Amino acid sequence: MTKQVTIALDAMGGDNGVSIVVPAALAYVKKEPSVKLILVGIEKEIETQLAGETHPNLKIQHASQTVEMTDLPSKALRNKKDSSMRIAINLVKKGEADACVSAGNTGALMATARFVLKMLPHVDRPAIITILPGKKTPSYMLDLGANVDCSAEQLFQFAVMGSELASSMKVSENPRIGLLNVGQEEIKGNEQVKQAHELLSNSSLNYIGYVEGDDIFLSDVDVVVADGFVGNVSLKSIEGIAKLIGSLLKEGFNRNILTKMAGVVAYPVLRRLKHKIDPRKYNGASLLGLRGIVIKSHGSADITSYQNAIKIAKEQIFADVPRHISNQVEYHLAKAKKDS
Amino acid sequence: MTKQVTIALDAMGGDNGVSIVVPAALAYVKKEPSVKLILVGIEKEIETQLAGETHPNLKIQHASQTVEMTDLPSKALRNKKDSSMRIAINLVKKGEADACVSAGNTGALMATARFVLKMLPHVDRPAIITILPGKKTPSYMLDLGANVDCSAEQLFQFAVMGSELASSMKVSENPRIGLLNVGQEEIKGNEQVKQAHELLSNSSLNYIGYVEGDDIFLSDVDVVVADGFVGNVSLKSIEGIAKLIGSLLKEGFNRNILTKMAGVVAYPVLRRLKHKIDPRKYNGASLLGLRGIVIKSHGSADITSYQNAIKIAKEQIFADVPRHISNQVEYHLAKAKKDS
Repeated sequence: MTKQVTIALDAMGGDNGVSIVVPAALAYVKKEPSVKLILVGIEKEIETQLAGETHPNLKIQHASQTVEMTDLPSKALRNKKDSSMRIAINLVKKGEADACVSAGNTGALMATARFVLKMLPHVDRPAIITILPGKKTPSYMLDLGANVDCSAEQLFQFAVMGSELASSMKVSENPRIGLLNVGQEEIKGNEQVKQAHELLSNSSLNYIGYVEGDDIFLSDVDVVVADGFVGNVSLKSIEGIAKLIGSLLKEGFNRNILTKMAGVVAYPVLRRLKHKIDPRKYNGASLLGLRGIVIKSHGSADITSYQNAIKIAKEQIFADVPRHISNQVEYHLAKAKKDS
Repeated sequence: MTKQVTIALDAMGGDNGVSIVVPAALAYVKKEPSVKLILVGIEKEIETQLAGETHPNLKIQHASQTVEMTDLPSKALRNKKDSSMRIAINLVKKGEADACVSAGNTGALMATARFVLKMLPHVDRPAIITILPGKKTPSYMLDLGANVDCSAEQLFQFAVMGSELASSMKVSENPRIGLLNVGQEEIKGNEQVKQAHELLSNSSLNYIGYVEGDDIFLSDVDVVVADGFVGNVSLKSIEGIAKLIGSLLKEGFNRNILTKMAGVVAYPVLRRLKHKIDPRKYNGASLLGLRGIVIKSHGSADITSYQNAIKIAKEQIFADVPRHISNQVEYHLAKAKKDS
């Protein structure tokens, strides 16, 4: 018998709440016997959505409140102690769940997770990380928006955590770490980036030096490190141009009867491309640095992509990611402090 | 008779120097009688490349030195006073050319242009700006890497200059200005961005507020303002994913005989798409804030795209961009200083 793990889902989170989370959870437990799911949220709404369906690996945990996308994190933390998000994180804290997934308000999720679960020793703040497709290999990028002004030490912490996630997730045995920077030699980086470069160069991480925005996709870097402002803008820019190309392709093939026929012929190739870079396939960012596994699904995730976020949570549980990160952080950061 | 203008070209600049710049110049003067070009560089190399061809609107100006891509800007400035880049900029300074174009070392070009031409009053440093495709409208983005740490005042200067370029270039009569920021409400921006937001909100620019990375392509913002670090990473990330999609499409259609046939059928649609987002079509970034027009071509530009950089120079001359920017900068920045 395989080990069974439990994941708490914030059923109310995201643009579409229960109407996405509940069917995604049902579909997931049906195909994945090693995972039990707890749907956390307003019981009545969840039950309405379930419409009488049940599954032995699917439980409901009532939570009377919902964190809105517009709620300030501080307010959510103070005034919504019975929110689906808070209760889902509490379940992780109490050991009743091995991880939680939320598609809700990112700021509130960060603040709540940090407050409830606490940070690992030597880590200042959580970082958001996700995996992106690439020409040679996919790569992880962090931070994606949790920290707008990062010190060199924080960038170094991100590198250590990203490296360990990439190796735990078997992306690479000895992940190649790159520090995101601008191209022009003479103005290479701001102060924090230059200092982080020094810290990384003196570490035992597999640091390959500065990388530029296009290296995320074209080079064989495994982990791209940036402050949250830069990482967030980069990720959003990528989403923007990818959507633009997608919509131009669609428009192009829909122009007239001839292009429509061409579209039918080209469909298998386009579908393969779409599959390869489909953001839904990559849905599920991790909040690293916490004493527990917290996965952030995109707010607009659909049923398919929400399941990917659950899958990522499951993989991180089986790979025991927080313990590995904790060990690495202990090793590298304690060492960096001693050296400095 | 139409007015004739003169543009100096740094014939040695870029990854491929004369072998790109000379044929591009020849092709350009043949089709554009309103433009005279001066090829600045090592005379012998230019003549070899011309292989006996001449044109009444094409002149050569000898310069004995070449700025290498690896040269430090400070060194280029000090030790290469007879470089093709420096002489081309000198021609603008002396009024013998109305603009110059270089595909050479960006840092050296910035430093030299700034030293020779000087900044406009109230502007601290040059900013690099280019135009990008979009779903609704194309948009300008600046700064793309000239300034890694920007004050709120500099971001405001960028906004004023970008706005004026967009309106001079008829992209929009009253350009919509957006300030690039991250999505999460609670951590909205770093200090400089927040202060720039205040300055912009109190100005008479058509400021629409914060925008995110995907808005560059998906919304109707005309000018996206960011510091050079963020702008550069965003631009490079965009180039990276666009190249990845391009190569995946190519690979996909080349997989086997069936996909190749599909590729032939789909070709007209794909060509249209490529044309619409082709970076070559957008080649030619401007260095704004100087007392003169300086256009930076991509180092790897080919003959077609280099001509686009010349075309941009021509358009800016005819629109009298520096004078317009100077007036606007005077108006907005003097006003902002008075108000503060």
